[in-house]
Amino acid sequence: MKEILGFLGMGTMGAPMARNLLKAGYPVVVYNRSRHKAEALADAGAQVADSVAQVAMRAQVVLACLADAQVVEQVVTGPGGLLQAMEPGKVFVDMTTNSPPVSIRLARLCAEKGVEMLDAPVSGGDVGAAEGKLSIMLGGKPEVFQRCLPILEVLGRRITHMGGQVGAGGYAKLANQIMVPLHLVAMSEALVFGAKAGLDLNKLASALSGGMANSAIFEYRASKMLAGDFAPGGTAAVQLKDLNYISQAMDALGMSLPCTELVRSLYQRLVDEGHGKEDHSSIVRIFEQAAGVLARGKV
Amino acid sequence: MKEILGFLGMGTMGAPMARNLLKAGYPVVVYNRSRHKAEALADAGAQVADSVAQVAMRAQVVLACLADAQVVEQVVTGPGGLLQAMEPGKVFVDMTTNSPPVSIRLARLCAEKGVEMLDAPVSGGDVGAAEGKLSIMLGGKPEVFQRCLPILEVLGRRITHMGGQVGAGGYAKLANQIMVPLHLVAMSEALVFGAKAGLDLNKLASALSGGMANSAIFEYRASKMLAGDFAPGGTAAVQLKDLNYISQAMDALGMSLPCTELVRSLYQRLVDEGHGKEDHSSIVRIFEQAAGVLARGKV
Repeated sequence: MKEILGFLGMGTMGAPMARNLLKAGYPVVVYNRSRHKAEALADAGAQVADSVAQVAMRAQVVLACLADAQVVEQVVTGPGGLLQAMEPGKVFVDMTTNSPPVSIRLARLCAEKGVEMLDAPVSGGDVGAAEGKLSIMLGGKPEVFQRCLPILEVLGRRITHMGGQVGAGGYAKLANQIMVPLHLVAMSEALVFGAKAGLDLNKLASALSGGMANSAIFEYRASKMLAGDFAPGGTAAVQLKDLNYISQAMDALGMSLPCTELVRSLYQRLVDEGHGKEDHSSIVRIFEQAAGVLARGKV
Repeated sequence: MKEILGFLGMGTMGAPMARNLLKAGYPVVVYNRSRHKAEALADAGAQVADSVAQVAMRAQVVLACLADAQVVEQVVTGPGGLLQAMEPGKVFVDMTTNSPPVSIRLARLCAEKGVEMLDAPVSGGDVGAAEGKLSIMLGGKPEVFQRCLPILEVLGRRITHMGGQVGAGGYAKLANQIMVPLHLVAMSEALVFGAKAGLDLNKLASALSGGMANSAIFEYRASKMLAGDFAPGGTAAVQLKDLNYISQAMDALGMSLPCTELVRSLYQRLVDEGHGKEDHSSIVRIFEQAAGVLARGKV
């Protein structure tokens, strides 16, 4: 018998993930603050809950893919939150890209109530979520991991148990989020350079993708960027949120990474200039401004 | 009938490229300053020349994959160089990662002698060279490109004619060389962050390669880097050379790219500290030093 699942957060990532769980035959109770996003899954067989507490009471395993640490904290510790409504023995799987110190604190509070927790953030974007091909990196007790593995296998094709402590998944995801925006910046600087040198950017993108410059980000976003299509995908605001978590984690670890810090400051500027809701590839705007040239094929 | 080819420079890239041309049935006259590297190809059927001039006289199309702009300039314009020895109608294909202004100047000198020139640098590393899977980006007249295409198709699987002017290939390759070291830095910063957070780096590398953080560089170098294997591949000194060409090109174009400039300064430091002959992935040393931790699995 399949466990009854809850899913909190029907955003760009959560909605396709919940859909895949429904397709795989799991009963799923979904909740979203803006209710219409949850109701969109009713046709696919989801039960739509009125509150977090309802999800916590009906489901045995509650997954969440939420906006940020603050929202997760609210959902877990707030009035009518998971800690008030979940019975001992149930599991909370936080797939949000969360700040590891926050995850560690929440895991301690869950443990006091007898609730198990995994932190299990993902990489692969909306496409990976839709195709069930995410990379999932998680932390938490091995036996809880084993219990949740069949569920996670519906969502991802690479599932890495990073360690027995909650927080290990989050640290791995932050390492991922060091690389992703740096790859976006690499692509942006290369294409702005090519534009300034007068090259045909579609030819350039084709040449770059055939050699050592290729990346998952390049394959996913170069052609959209060249077309000036900044519909998200992951937004610049979320990218900045993750870079801020990385910055906080580096402070706590007593370290500094110069390129990551530079990239964080560039995303801060992009968001300050009002582009936070665009796809994170819109970082190219910063380099276009400075060079006085557009890195876009046909505009 | 296949044209007689010349090949100057039997280094990490040139030697496997010349081997592939021999395998494909081309007669190839090879030359290298340190003669033993040329003689290593005699078994495979290469004719070993005593001088650049001998190659220029025997071959119809002379390819070169040399250390830097200065060496190419010497080989073309120096005493006993190509300009002195090549007859009109022959072709010089420079596959070196060269400085575009230098390529443009050399093309003008070749044209005065009736010698055709293409600039055709490559990406794909020693592995791409050995497997005939390079990405080749080239500039020059369309009819010269067409004449050389069958030769280039032996060496690469993605061949992009970037434009009718010599230099277009070089600009595209420099765009490539903006991305490659940024990807190495992204990988380095992520793994040093993971090391400082206490993660198992082999698990982390596996998780990262399964999602949006993956790159050609990551697949090519992450496991070697984690093993502390810095045998080149492309060296840090060559990476710095390319970053200096990019810097010069940006000055000429009247632009600046902040991450590329930062990465250039980091490679300068790496080379200053005596690591120029190591693989370019040894840039991780700079971040390891600053964080006081090794980003290597088993050392």
